[in-house]
Order: sequence, then structure tokens, then C-alpha cells
Amino acid sequence: MSLSTSDASRSVGVVTRKAFFVSDSTGITAETLGSALLANFPGVVFRRHTVPFVDTVAGARNVIRDIEAAQAGGAGAIVFATVKSPEILREFESSGAVVIDLLGGHLRELEAALGSTASEQLGQFHGVGDIERYFARMRAVEYAIEHDDGQSMRALDIADVIIVAPSRCGKTPTTMYLALQYGLLVANYPLTDDDFPSDGLPAPVSRFVDKCFGLTTTPLRLSQVRHERRPSSTYASLAQCTLELRRAEDLYRRNRVPFLNSSTKSVEEMSAVIMQSMRLRS
Amino acid sequence: MSLSTSDASRSVGVVTRKAFFVSDSTGITAETLGSALLANFPGVVFRRHTVPFVDTVAGARNVIRDIEAAQAGGAGAIVFATVKSPEILREFESSGAVVIDLLGGHLRELEAALGSTASEQLGQFHGVGDIERYFARMRAVEYAIEHDDGQSMRALDIADVIIVAPSRCGKTPTTMYLALQYGLLVANYPLTDDDFPSDGLPAPVSRFVDKCFGLTTTPLRLSQVRHERRPSSTYASLAQCTLELRRAEDLYRRNRVPFLNSSTKSVEEMSAVIMQSMRLRS
Repeated sequence: MSLSTSDASRSVGVVTRKAFFVSDSTGITAETLGSALLANFPGVVFRRHTVPFVDTVAGARNVIRDIEAAQAGGAGAIVFATVKSPEILREFESSGAVVIDLLGGHLRELEAALGSTASEQLGQFHGVGDIERYFARMRAVEYAIEHDDGQSMRALDIADVIIVAPSRCGKTPTTMYLALQYGLLVANYPLTDDDFPSDGLPAPVSRFVDKCFGLTTTPLRLSQVRHERRPSSTYASLAQCTLELRRAEDLYRRNRVPFLNSSTKSVEEMSAVIMQSMRLRS
Repeated sequence: MSLSTSDASRSVGVVTRKAFFVSDSTGITAETLGSALLANFPGVVFRRHTVPFVDTVAGARNVIRDIEAAQAGGAGAIVFATVKSPEILREFESSGAVVIDLLGGHLRELEAALGSTASEQLGQFHGVGDIERYFARMRAVEYAIEHDDGQSMRALDIADVIIVAPSRCGKTPTTMYLALQYGLLVANYPLTDDDFPSDGLPAPVSRFVDKCFGLTTTPLRLSQVRHERRPSSTYASLAQCTLELRRAEDLYRRNRVPFLNSSTKSVEEMSAVIMQSMRLRS
């Protein structure tokens, strides 16, 4: 007789729970905060399911059917909710699942602190100002695409920051994140072997040294990432990676370009460090 | 005698409060959830300040000096904290500001639900698996840049979704968001006047109709966005925008391409709708 999956996991002592991220909007906040909370329980395996746009009682009941199905299969489900309507929240609470209300309690704390009542209007995010934010992000993403990997020098003078680094250190994803999330104008420029005989930054960006931010990583990690792109090439060899990173770091130091090691950092973390270092965050 | 800014704002009944988003990590969760909470108090003007990487008591004390300066200038500050260390949190609580602890209470709820204690280790996010997520996002961003605006057809067959729409309906930012946030392979393809005599989708994407998702918007909004790029052009005229959008929507309907109206939606919301519609979210 073969074991079912859940029997098999129980037999090696792994606990599996189902986590639902439920939201009356995109679900991004529920997912992000919920995942951060779950990361504190490394002994439990969570099967995650995000359900956005649950903004009616009928919609909630649909989700509850899935929750009940999950609970029938074993351990209780956990629901992380960013749902403003008390009525919808009550539906979830009556489902028997553990409901972590990520909004309600904090809203009451804020009401007390501000001495005023939270507005009942939903969807406050779509008011005036949205189109400005939208323009800013759209412009920033287009700027980032145009100025990716040194492809264009057209408008470096208006860049908020220019990320410089050897190939595969994380320039492009970090650039896009800063553009999309914060509407910043971010260019990036590759450092290649050609740039290293010189003591200065590559000519196109050397005028803008104050806008430059460098990335480095560990030779092992760089080699691993480059093997993804070109397996068994000189480009991906540990020797080449070691050399390029040492030269890049020398270049940053000589030119007082702030830099960070991307090897243990997520794109979000790199972006936060860059904004802090370049004083781009209010 | 001229009024100072705060006197002036008090005189018209506007309340200004300072909000600090404080985190031992990037601050993104504190900022996102904190802003969602503040949006419920439209009568209050909040001056926002994000402080990431506050992971020592000394670091907390630096921030508290800023908080105290803000409080000296008028109304009390509000601190939204995603800080795991109880010691650091206590520092903030002793500052006299209102502290909204976005993690601690929920961690205790989870401990009760799971019957286990939250791990004390910080930085759970940098474990194994990170490099896989990093590869996926990097690949996705590069794929999105390569396949932006119909520039390349090289690998449309491996796309998770192909966004089609007339120029300026929001294809590019939505594409990048899906790539960066979820590691999805997203191409986008413009619908131009040339495509409309035909009843089908443009030839390069017609083979992949099942992967297509359309965007539309309102003529007024499209005209506004196009005027940003080319003021007073035919391209930006209300007549041209009305025509293109009507034809695009007809094309979507005839080919059973799901679509959404982007005019009142943020990039995050569009992404969530697309993932839900195309069943790309677990």
C-alpha cells in the first residue's frame, strides 16, 4: 500500500497547513505581510493560496467553500485577511478557520490615536493623484528600458541614480524595481574588461559620478549566475568572475562610488539600500 | 504678520500628522500596509517618512530623535513598525509616539493557532530558495524587456501571457510588474490601425490567442495620456482614441480575448486581475 502525500509528510514529522491570503483589493499586502509572518515558523510547510477582490459576501462564501475543502483534508486553515467590510470578515470567522485580521485591529488603534472615525468608503486609492503616480511610473519604466545596460546615454543627466556593475550582478531587476515601485529614473551601465585599464569610471557615466551606485557580489555567486546564461564559458569561470569583481570594487573605492554586495540580498533589499544611500527616499 | 505653514493649515481645519514607517528590513510592508490604513482617514494630511533596516537599539534611537523633533513641532507622530525585536519595539514605545505594531500581535495569534513558538532567527528570507526566485525574476524581467511592445517574437511560445492593447493603455508597466513581482514571462504587443481591417488578432500573436489578454481604457483617459507624449497630435485626439479603443474592444470580443479597462486601476490591480483571469496565481 502506498502512502498518500499527507500520510507521507506526517510520517516524517512535517506539518502542512493551508494559508489563504484574502483581500478585497489586490491581495499584495495580505500576501507580503502574511508571508513575512509565516516565515517565522520554519517547521511548518504552508500551501499558499491568494484570493484577490473578495468584496462581497457571496464572493467570501465561494472562498469559504475552498477553505472548508482544505480543512476537511486535515489541519485547520489560516486566513490572512485585508478586508475592510466587517460583514465579509465575519463570514470568514464563522468558517472555523483561524482568521488573522491584518486591518481591523490597527484601524481601531488609529481611530483612537487620531480621535476620528475611519471612513467607510472603500477604494480610497483611486482618487485624484492616481494618474500622476501612474504617469511617473510609466515614464520611469520606459526610461529604465531605454537606459538598460548602457543601451542609451540620451538622458543620463536626468537620472536619479545610475547603477554600475559587471554583467549579472543584478543591475536590471533592481533598476526595474526602483522604477516601478518608486517612479525613480534609473539607468544602468555595465562594467566590462575594457573599463579596467582606466582608473576612472567609463567615459559615458564619469560626468555623473555623484549619481552612480555600484553593485558587487561574491565570485562564486556570480559564476553560478553566469553559468545559467553561458554554461562552461570563460565568462562564467570563477577566475574571470573573481578578477572582474576585484577590479569593480577597486573602481568604486577609487571613485568614492557607494556600493553593496548583492549576493545575499533580494531585489527589494537592494532597492531600499540604494534609496537610503542616495537619499532618494523621503 | 504672515502665518507659519502649520498655523495656516490649522486655520483651514486641516490636521497634519507625521507618519513613520519603521522596519528592520526594507520597510515595504510597513509602507504598504501603513498607507492602506492611513487612506481611511482622508481628513488628515500625513507627512510620511520610511526608515528601513532599523535592526539595532542604537539605530532605533537615531530614528526616535527624528520622531521627537517631529512631535516637538506639533501633533504626535504615528509609527508603523515591522520590527521583530521586542527590545527595539520597546524603544519606540517609550518615545511617546503612537506605535502600531504590524507584526507582534499577529505573531502571537499565529503561535496560538499553530501551537508552536515563532523562530527567533531574523532574516528568514535569505535562505535556500532565494537564488531560484532571483533567477526567475531576472529571467522574467529580461524576457519582458526583450518582448516589450512587439519588439521580438523570439520566444512567444513560452510566454505565460501576452498583453495586447492600443498604444498607451498600460501594457509596459503591467508587464514589468508581473515579471518582477511574480517571475511570470510576459510579452506585450501593440494594436495599431494596421491591425483593424482584419477580424483576427495581429498575425504574430494570433497563434497564441489563448495566452492573450487585452487592455482598454476610456477615450478621455487615453487622450490625456497620449497628450503627455505627443501634445496636440492626431494620435492624441479624442476622435482617434475613441476609434482605436472601440476597434480594440471589438477585436477582443470577436476573438474571446479577456480584457479589462485600465482607466481606474493601478498597475497592481491590473496585474491581480490578469493573474486571476489567466489562472496564473496559485
